[in-house]
Amino acid sequence: MTGAFFAVAHTDSACPARAGIMDLPHGRVTTPVFMPVGTNATVKAQTVDDLERIGFRIILSNTYHLYLRPGTEVIGAAGGLHNFMRWDRNILTDSGGFQVFSLAPMRKIQDEGVRFRSHIDGSYHSLTPENVVEIQKVLGSDIQMQLDVCTPWGISYKEAEEALRLTTLWLKRAKSAWEKARDSVSDTNGADAYRGKLFAIVQGNFFRDLRARSAESAAGADTPGIAIGGLSVGEEEPVFLDYLSYTASLLPPEKPRYVMGIGTPQYILGAIERGIDMFDCVFPTRTARNGHVFSRRGPYNLKKAENRLKFEPIDKECGCGVCRKYSLAYLRHLFKTQEILCSMLATYHNLYFLHDLVEEARRAIMEDRFLPFKKSFLETYSEGNR
Amino acid sequence: MTGAFFAVAHTDSACPARAGIMDLPHGRVTTPVFMPVGTNATVKAQTVDDLERIGFRIILSNTYHLYLRPGTEVIGAAGGLHNFMRWDRNILTDSGGFQVFSLAPMRKIQDEGVRFRSHIDGSYHSLTPENVVEIQKVLGSDIQMQLDVCTPWGISYKEAEEALRLTTLWLKRAKSAWEKARDSVSDTNGADAYRGKLFAIVQGNFFRDLRARSAESAAGADTPGIAIGGLSVGEEEPVFLDYLSYTASLLPPEKPRYVMGIGTPQYILGAIERGIDMFDCVFPTRTARNGHVFSRRGPYNLKKAENRLKFEPIDKECGCGVCRKYSLAYLRHLFKTQEILCSMLATYHNLYFLHDLVEEARRAIMEDRFLPFKKSFLETYSEGNR
Repeated sequence: MTGAFFAVAHTDSACPARAGIMDLPHGRVTTPVFMPVGTNATVKAQTVDDLERIGFRIILSNTYHLYLRPGTEVIGAAGGLHNFMRWDRNILTDSGGFQVFSLAPMRKIQDEGVRFRSHIDGSYHSLTPENVVEIQKVLGSDIQMQLDVCTPWGISYKEAEEALRLTTLWLKRAKSAWEKARDSVSDTNGADAYRGKLFAIVQGNFFRDLRARSAESAAGADTPGIAIGGLSVGEEEPVFLDYLSYTASLLPPEKPRYVMGIGTPQYILGAIERGIDMFDCVFPTRTARNGHVFSRRGPYNLKKAENRLKFEPIDKECGCGVCRKYSLAYLRHLFKTQEILCSMLATYHNLYFLHDLVEEARRAIMEDRFLPFKKSFLETYSEGNR
Repeated sequence: MTGAFFAVAHTDSACPARAGIMDLPHGRVTTPVFMPVGTNATVKAQTVDDLERIGFRIILSNTYHLYLRPGTEVIGAAGGLHNFMRWDRNILTDSGGFQVFSLAPMRKIQDEGVRFRSHIDGSYHSLTPENVVEIQKVLGSDIQMQLDVCTPWGISYKEAEEALRLTTLWLKRAKSAWEKARDSVSDTNGADAYRGKLFAIVQGNFFRDLRARSAESAAGADTPGIAIGGLSVGEEEPVFLDYLSYTASLLPPEKPRYVMGIGTPQYILGAIERGIDMFDCVFPTRTARNGHVFSRRGPYNLKKAENRLKFEPIDKECGCGVCRKYSLAYLRHLFKTQEILCSMLATYHNLYFLHDLVEEARRAIMEDRFLPFKKSFLETYSEGNR
């Protein structure tokens, strides 16, 4: 019923890693794909031209933040988020649930939805499975997420089970609301019907049977795609990988799989190896603003004194505009003087680096050499100690 | 002796406003010209590509800041400031005197030079007429300024006279040092001789006879260009314009005239009218970071509530990339959420606006219609009240 918007082009012969294609309302996206985060309708310190130049075809934005500021009235009047921020390619939005749990100073969860206070001005708001679909429709999200209950590492089975009960209940209602939203022609100026895709979210914390139950519900709901939530929430890397492998193995292979909140080369390659198609994280952009940059020889701190007289790029093998133009000595100077240009250039480099890494991973999958590619990359990356 | 690096192409038939051409080591610059300020080897929130796209052919940087951080050792090792910051066009540097007087927590002025403490780490340093020339040679400045003593509005005649005595004494020594620097081939890797131009600075505070005496010394020193310093230091606009007219009228017409520290449309047009060729100021870039933007209908505050649903550009007549792409509603949202992109876009617009204004002024001069152009621009600009 969801149409063939996603297709697996090739699965690596030695592991579940796969290369795919997604046809979305704002153009084709190849997978695996890393999505930069544009919380407030901007990927911090980048223009949309920068993002296009790097080659991104989809970015993520946050429903919670946009709903509170500038509000759906403003973005609706702008004709949607694409038009508001002038990004012509695809946008995935989360449901806002995660931010309600991590940012709001108060929240009350009931079957109906979640009531919370804004972290900005303390005002009261409610998110329900239904209005979250509506909000994301107003945003014009190419991929939208169901409202879910995300739980931290270390909670009890009972708590995890109750959170899962709500997530499953909300999935059904989200699906109905989304089908209604999709079928109704937009009220405003007779625009086309909403064509964004809904993704279910698998929860279940760190309990295998709950994960299995959740995966079954998600698959049964037959949404266009499925996200794996509630990972990378404080657990150790082996636990993360274990639960990722387990959950991914339970999902229907013909649907895209999205893991939320991972953004280091190790985690990304680990997820790709386990058959994950999509991921996002603020890490590469946030860490850039703190002067931390990726390189093939490991992550690197611009402010290091040893960079004072280094007239070479962050990464000699990187083809990005920053590495082709600027020296570590200059970038260190910009960091020490707290210049905005440092955030601009370091962010551009980090995003380019991850985009490039994922593209390389895709080529490796297509040629059945993902595992040796990963091994070789991580050896250099860990040995690095730049 | 200074060669014909500057030529007046045309003087308006109705006022001293003039259009000229400067041939500098990093290419031709037409005048009048506004120079954006790149204090720490970067114009804040702009890439050098942004500056090139706008059309700037010369920017200003600050000797005081660069001398303290990253230091001449680093910039020298980079092969000069152009190479360090990757700006291939011209750079004018000030002498550092102004910052010593405005930023340093301690200073002691003697005939020899000025001893001061760094505002960054409290370390002790000295600037002399001679070492300031040498530092600017290491930077590779296309235009460098003599060390001078800049005085504030409201000091006594005696204080102004003493400051002028030092400025005049230091001009002679700067000239000798510059001639030596210019004639000696660079020590490092046999590069070409230093070809940067030295500008004398006219001081004299707000005393006509001191201004006249200083203008005479500056003209007598026969440096390639002459700056008018010590204006826009706290005095009212009519006093500024009065002293600007008076000082400019005393200067040899065949040399470029530079007024330091002016950056609003009114002040720039007022200076052009009085025969000034060059100006710089942090105002357009600093004010942009506070959400203030220029428009043909007057300066404008992005954060205004009335912008919430304004899906139109800052200035409909502006041809800049920001006005052609982004709405006031979006820019207001970026300002309210304190996004770096707001500083990037507002700065780009303000610099484009001033560059465009000065280019329009030049065309008006060439066609002997500068005064009606100025009148018309300022009428719309002041009436504005956007």
